[in-house]
Amino acid sequence: MLTLYDFLPSGNGYKVRLLLSQLDIPFKLVEKNILKGETRTPEFLAINPDGRIPTVQFDDGRTLAQSNAIIFYFAEGTAFLPNDRFERAQALQWMFFEQYSHEPYIAVARFWIHELHKREEWADRLKERWQKGYQALDIMERHLQGHRFFAGDSYSIADISLYAYTHVAEQGDFDLSRYPSIRGWLDRVADQPGHVLITQSVFG
Amino acid sequence: MLTLYDFLPSGNGYKVRLLLSQLDIPFKLVEKNILKGETRTPEFLAINPDGRIPTVQFDDGRTLAQSNAIIFYFAEGTAFLPNDRFERAQALQWMFFEQYSHEPYIAVARFWIHELHKREEWADRLKERWQKGYQALDIMERHLQGHRFFAGDSYSIADISLYAYTHVAEQGDFDLSRYPSIRGWLDRVADQPGHVLITQSVFG
Repeated sequence: MLTLYDFLPSGNGYKVRLLLSQLDIPFKLVEKNILKGETRTPEFLAINPDGRIPTVQFDDGRTLAQSNAIIFYFAEGTAFLPNDRFERAQALQWMFFEQYSHEPYIAVARFWIHELHKREEWADRLKERWQKGYQALDIMERHLQGHRFFAGDSYSIADISLYAYTHVAEQGDFDLSRYPSIRGWLDRVADQPGHVLITQSVFG
Repeated sequence: MLTLYDFLPSGNGYKVRLLLSQLDIPFKLVEKNILKGETRTPEFLAINPDGRIPTVQFDDGRTLAQSNAIIFYFAEGTAFLPNDRFERAQALQWMFFEQYSHEPYIAVARFWIHELHKREEWADRLKERWQKGYQALDIMERHLQGHRFFAGDSYSIADISLYAYTHVAEQGDFDLSRYPSIRGWLDRVADQPGHVLITQSVFG
């Protein structure tokens, strides 16, 4: 059976858990607590030299890392990856946007505040995270004013990728009340068949 | 004809220029000087709301951004994207690694030193960039000790993606002399048919 090395509060891990659940693919969950350095042990670095979760391991021992590459792998040939070549590239465009312009600000602010409880101590460093995080949300809002989803007309891994940290952005003290189109999209994503919550460990 | 909005010193733009050259796809180059704010004008934000180069525009007006999404689009169906599903995901794994763990450190250090000439003024901020950039290079070196290329056995867009800023890392004061496997791989990439230099503006 597929093994997923993961840390349950992680939005990056949640992307994989959500898609595998929606695809009905069973997996064995092996928790690695990043707060305790469990992804930096020699044993785990042999599985992923980059020392990060999520990482999946197939029965034959092969491994795959990077949340967005993992969900691309499992989405190929399914309705979660657009059939159209341009829309497939659009999905990747938003997924690279997520890792470059969204996650480093929105996920990191959430991690510092919600996991590390450094809101007061790191107030200065948080300012840049909030400013750039809001820039990412502004771009998402603008796109969603004219579109129901991020790539093509239907729910795809681009939505899963952006949903993961956007739907918990308030845990990083981002105010989503000013983003009506994002809030409508969050509801549409949560309404998809097979949706699970970030705190739900399916099959695990 | 395809239009490429680009800034010639950009490694992200170079990925697209290099692949289009190797695929023999002609394009019209429109330079946008990011040092002069030319990607933040209302006119350019209408083309890419994220205000970044590279961005491509097709004849029908559709646009695509994010260097790695653009090269994925053009590589589909060619030898530059692995045919095998797992190797395709491996290519994406390395491309997401590039945007998350490599470019923010190696490209940014190069930009600050080589383009903005802030080596002395920003010495403190550069320390973190060097430290994390070397971590990325360590991971690449370790992979290349056992492999000729990053995804499967042949040159692909994963190599183009990582080559773009690695081959000019010394402009960010990274010392590549300690990385023999990376240096061997840089030579293999530069030896590929149709290779162009970052300073060469092909078809432009």
